[in-house]
Amino acid sequence: MRILGIDPGTRVTGYGIVEKRGNRLVHVDNGAIYTRSSDELATRLKTIHDGLCRIMGEYAPEALAVEQIFIAKNAMSALKLGHARGAALLVGVNHDLPVFEYTALQVKSAVVGYGKAAKEQVQQMVKVLLNLPEIAQEDASDALAVAICHAHSAGLNNRLEKALNRKR
Amino acid sequence: MRILGIDPGTRVTGYGIVEKRGNRLVHVDNGAIYTRSSDELATRLKTIHDGLCRIMGEYAPEALAVEQIFIAKNAMSALKLGHARGAALLVGVNHDLPVFEYTALQVKSAVVGYGKAAKEQVQQMVKVLLNLPEIAQEDASDALAVAICHAHSAGLNNRLEKALNRKR
Repeated sequence: MRILGIDPGTRVTGYGIVEKRGNRLVHVDNGAIYTRSSDELATRLKTIHDGLCRIMGEYAPEALAVEQIFIAKNAMSALKLGHARGAALLVGVNHDLPVFEYTALQVKSAVVGYGKAAKEQVQQMVKVLLNLPEIAQEDASDALAVAICHAHSAGLNNRLEKALNRKR
Repeated sequence: MRILGIDPGTRVTGYGIVEKRGNRLVHVDNGAIYTRSSDELATRLKTIHDGLCRIMGEYAPEALAVEQIFIAKNAMSALKLGHARGAALLVGVNHDLPVFEYTALQVKSAVVGYGKAAKEQVQQMVKVLLNLPEIAQEDASDALAVAICHAHSAGLNNRLEKALNRKR
């Protein structure tokens, strides 16, 4: 199963694709979509949208995972983040992908095993888990982390379903 | 010139289409896109996106106008609003429409002639200016107001340009 993780932002949108092969987790690609600071918001959203559409076409992921946001620094940054997040979610549903949202606590627990892990620990574990040559760009690393989180949850859900089916 | 005004929201997205014929402003249509409260955010965004795409197809507007937001009640409502606004702006740029943003002050000044006018005054003036049989649904009325605002600004810009050209 191919999972696309996205860390949306109006300035930088990170993405990461991981593939779950049995119990193994394989890194496919990661990167970041940069928007031009001189561009209007609508144009920036188009850059994000088109970048993500390209990635959809290239890698054909089967699920989309993004971090669920509860607290934003302030209303203005929340509004901006919402625009980018809206664009990312739209690309997912427009490509008929199931969209999964995970809290930062769930992502950190899945990647590091500790819900309050520091950013650096998460980045380091993403590198180790996916056998990356070096730590990925910040936003791409966050995107990979949420993809890993979904891979783990999906695996767990599968196992639960099988166990329940056996009991029936 | 056909102008589509949008008042985005994750629950209700208002839209209004006005046509500027010379100095006259003609009402074309208005309405609201409702999302299901039981739906996930991504599905709601798709409802908004698809609804707006249908309107684009039906009315072929030449410009998109939305209200510019400076202050939101709180970070969570700003984040939600951002998602819906992102979807609306994306539909605009994806249909190659120029996107214009106006502050509430600009919209109220254009419609009522007073930047601090009450919501009810704006709704009443929208009804009068567009010769509507009754006051439009709240969000649709806001969408019509920002479309009217753009019609006025566009007219002003045109006249300015012509005046400048005559001087050259």
